[in-house]
Amino acid sequence: MVEQHTPAQESPLRLKLRSIIFDTDTAAGRYFDLVVILCIICSVILVLIDTVESIHAKYGFIIQVLEWFFTVMFTIEYGLRLYCSTSPWRYGRSFYGIVDLLSVLPSYLALFLPGANFTLIIRILRLFRIFRILKLLRYLSEGTLLLRALMQSGRKIFVFFFSVLLIVLVLSPVMYVVEGPANGFTSIPKSIYWAIVTITTVGYGDITPKTVLGQTIASFTMLLGYSIIAIPTGILTASIHNEMGRSRNSRVCHTCKKAGHEQYANFCDRCGSKLELEG
Amino acid sequence: MVEQHTPAQESPLRLKLRSIIFDTDTAAGRYFDLVVILCIICSVILVLIDTVESIHAKYGFIIQVLEWFFTVMFTIEYGLRLYCSTSPWRYGRSFYGIVDLLSVLPSYLALFLPGANFTLIIRILRLFRIFRILKLLRYLSEGTLLLRALMQSGRKIFVFFFSVLLIVLVLSPVMYVVEGPANGFTSIPKSIYWAIVTITTVGYGDITPKTVLGQTIASFTMLLGYSIIAIPTGILTASIHNEMGRSRNSRVCHTCKKAGHEQYANFCDRCGSKLELEG
Amino acid sequence: MVEQHTPAQESPLRLKLRSIIFDTDTAAGRYFDLVVILCIICSVILVLIDTVESIHAKYGFIIQVLEWFFTVMFTIEYGLRLYCSTSPWRYGRSFYGIVDLLSVLPSYLALFLPGANFTLIIRILRLFRIFRILKLLRYLSEGTLLLRALMQSGRKIFVFFFSVLLIVLVLSPVMYVVEGPANGFTSIPKSIYWAIVTITTVGYGDITPKTVLGQTIASFTMLLGYSIIAIPTGILTASIHNEMGRSRNSRVCHTCKKAGHEQYANFCDRCGSKLELEG
Amino acid sequence: MVEQHTPAQESPLRLKLRSIIFDTDTAAGRYFDLVVILCIICSVILVLIDTVESIHAKYGFIIQVLEWFFTVMFTIEYGLRLYCSTSPWRYGRSFYGIVDLLSVLPSYLALFLPGANFTLIIRILRLFRIFRILKLLRYLSEGTLLLRALMQSGRKIFVFFFSVLLIVLVLSPVMYVVEGPANGFTSIPKSIYWAIVTITTVGYGDITPKTVLGQTIASFTMLLGYSIIAIPTGILTASIHNEMGRSRNSRVCHTCKKAGHEQYANFCDRCGSKLELEG
Repeated sequence: MVEQHTPAQESPLRLKLRSIIFDTDTAAGRYFDLVVILCIICSVILVLIDTVESIHAKYGFIIQVLEWFFTVMFTIEYGLRLYCSTSPWRYGRSFYGIVDLLSVLPSYLALFLPGANFTLIIRILRLFRIFRILKLLRYLSEGTLLLRALMQSGRKIFVFFFSVLLIVLVLSPVMYVVEGPANGFTSIPKSIYWAIVTITTVGYGDITPKTVLGQTIASFTMLLGYSIIAIPTGILTASIHNEMGRSRNSRVCHTCKKAGHEQYANFCDRCGSKLELEG
Repeated sequence: MVEQHTPAQESPLRLKLRSIIFDTDTAAGRYFDLVVILCIICSVILVLIDTVESIHAKYGFIIQVLEWFFTVMFTIEYGLRLYCSTSPWRYGRSFYGIVDLLSVLPSYLALFLPGANFTLIIRILRLFRIFRILKLLRYLSEGTLLLRALMQSGRKIFVFFFSVLLIVLVLSPVMYVVEGPANGFTSIPKSIYWAIVTITTVGYGDITPKTVLGQTIASFTMLLGYSIIAIPTGILTASIHNEMGRSRNSRVCHTCKKAGHEQYANFCDRCGSKLELEG
Repeated sequence: MVEQHTPAQESPLRLKLRSIIFDTDTAAGRYFDLVVILCIICSVILVLIDTVESIHAKYGFIIQVLEWFFTVMFTIEYGLRLYCSTSPWRYGRSFYGIVDLLSVLPSYLALFLPGANFTLIIRILRLFRIFRILKLLRYLSEGTLLLRALMQSGRKIFVFFFSVLLIVLVLSPVMYVVEGPANGFTSIPKSIYWAIVTITTVGYGDITPKTVLGQTIASFTMLLGYSIIAIPTGILTASIHNEMGRSRNSRVCHTCKKAGHEQYANFCDRCGSKLELEG
Repeated sequence: MVEQHTPAQESPLRLKLRSIIFDTDTAAGRYFDLVVILCIICSVILVLIDTVESIHAKYGFIIQVLEWFFTVMFTIEYGLRLYCSTSPWRYGRSFYGIVDLLSVLPSYLALFLPGANFTLIIRILRLFRIFRILKLLRYLSEGTLLLRALMQSGRKIFVFFFSVLLIVLVLSPVMYVVEGPANGFTSIPKSIYWAIVTITTVGYGDITPKTVLGQTIASFTMLLGYSIIAIPTGILTASIHNEMGRSRNSRVCHTCKKAGHEQYANFCDRCGSKLELEG
């Protein structure tokens, strides 16, 4: 577990492997990524369809064999990553290191904890390996833009959820009293569930107001709720618009190299030097 | 009830208490706020889960004890607020003063009005104390921005609701005639309820068109309604965008009066003169 | 029916009445508007609740009496409008003149066409008077802005509906073949109804896919449909943003009085003269 | 199948036909387009309503006759298009050439493959001719704008779908374990279907959570999902806003190169010099 920082001492095999496994610029690296991601998707689909009763009865054994094949593959891959990483210890503690480990552990755990109680949970824990696909995001700069827009709007969206919570908490006891347990509103928590189903316009219809007063309140809730729920869209749209504008503005100051000046700016707003006209 | 404005005559205890209870800048003040808000949340959750039949049967007594504990706490807090406020009378009549009073009253009322008819209503009135959490908004400037955006859009959203009302009032009698009581459209008010459920895309499915003509009208309603319901989102988005722009607009160049500089700009991007730092 | 354009010959009563009935600037005119609108709303509510079986059985006679009271009132109002209008013939042919006439006609028609077949339709035609409330829009400039935004987006929203139609027409036969009459998809028109209910996210649940393939297609439809249905919101938001920006920009050219210049404009874009700086 | 590029050798009839069939500028060309589109719509409606059991039983024969009438018409039209095209081979391989061929083929195929198994599929394949209506888009520049906005947002919307997929894949096994087959969550794929129905706010209500924990998770999903699903709206709105701005941006000042002048501007609003007229 000693960290090795001196590349001169490394074997050519390890260097070669590292370039295949960790690089995204070389053809071999991209091909490796592609194969791993295909394995992940196949392995995840296996876990998903294995829960379908009819498929499990018919193809249960083949699925188990394939599952072990993928587990062994992922174990080898994890070992190789540990072996050829410049710093195995840091890789092991990184987000993807832990996800890589968690993607093989459940299958081995199932050997030692064969009780029926744990089987289902362990089988489902295998789905955790889907997070490895997040590595794909390296190829997409758009993810960063959306994430920045979301984070920029974080506090505003919290305020919005807070307001929805208040509306729901005022509405729920009212509907509980108006409709009562006879019409499905058996408790205030159930009434809260109904209010959220209604205000988000999901509208399952498993609990619906039956009385005229209840339907009137529900109608106002829907209209009010719709206006209020337009807020996150508004917040996100404004944020995305900002972020897109920022990444698009290509006017660069020749003195201090600051990019992202507004379309009509005459001077750099960091160093004050004259900007050249576009075109 | 005489208003006391001369702080020189006040006892040190009262000054200390006031700084804890009313201040949001000191550590003690924030800690006090946090404890009060946690008490409010716990007490509200108690009221909520007490309406679940199974929980009431099992833990009813404990919930009642805890409820009285919180009521006594809130009563003491209300007394302290009255005692150490610079102007108890003005505090008592303020929005939060009334909310604070209403958050303890229902529990005491239940002692004097023990009739079963009132019990449920009184128990639910306790939920009123949730509004005390609104004080939290002091910490969030985003709340103000969203509220300003909503208020700025107030008249536009009224016009929108007015249009939806007209569409609903034209649509409802048509569907009432087309579908009739046999298919669940027992009256025009019921038909209005259906129209609102449909136009807001909630779609419970408790009343649905059964005839071909009814389903055709419903289909057009959904498509039309969706376009129309996009309006509040549009209004709010434009308003939020404006408000976000305005909060950035506070940085004005003293030379050419150009507003709207970015937060970290050092120089005006129109005339190139130095901008002053904020604060 | 001779048009009278010479106000000198008119009686003072007629002038006074005209100012009350047609003016919106005087206190009397506004008060008259308010009374008429309240009568309209009451009369519309009467028609609505009269269709509720239980209310009709109990209060049917009172409702009928009140209905005739409002009909007589509206008839007198219509007569007064005709009498004191500067041009009765033009008023009679105007949109509001026709709406005013249509708001009293159905009640009188019911006397001459007492057959049970027509009763329901005639009773519902009374609801037509709700359109008289549109006069309210005179007080609201916001209505114009929203209408302009909608009309500006008209062609884009048509293109959107056209695309939705194509998606629906591709999707419907596929689901009809996949699910079949046994699962509620009894014909392609029914399948189209399902597709619109799904794509607009209304989701009644009266027809739902039962097969695995059908549910898979439905899932993709929902996700695809949601992205596509975001388009009208986007179109309207951009339009409203434009309209709000146009009506808000208060920079006026002192030479040619053209308003609505952009924030950073230095010169008027109509006459080319220098604009003064803001503030 | 030899391509003929020398118009001098062409017969006047062929030239005349080509101008009618392919031109959109002449009155005859537009009239021809209109007739063809009306035929397409009628023929598509025939296929749709033929699947309604009661209509098929009653008007089945008339529909079949009309269907053959349209098929022969479309065949003649296809022949004429091949005949008078400047390059029949290129037309035959073009998108619309293939769609035109596919719109007549199924009817003829039905003669050679009369088995009941194929009948339904072949009858539905006729609906393919609806794509011929896409030619209408030539008349609408708005379609291009929306398409550009969609394509511009393509990668961002892919990132969004990827995030929704991850949320759905985390949520589904959790709900499968919490609710279990007894409450309708019979397998993880079914649970995924539920998650998509919920997160897109369609909310059929065919599968709904029954346990308290399940309803709590579902409530959080709806609120979370709503915020996340606001993203495509935000992305599209920003894109449409950009595209609308770009179409305005075509007016550029030749002196200072400032773009983005309004359609009716006479002078540049930055440097005050005269703008040239469009076209």
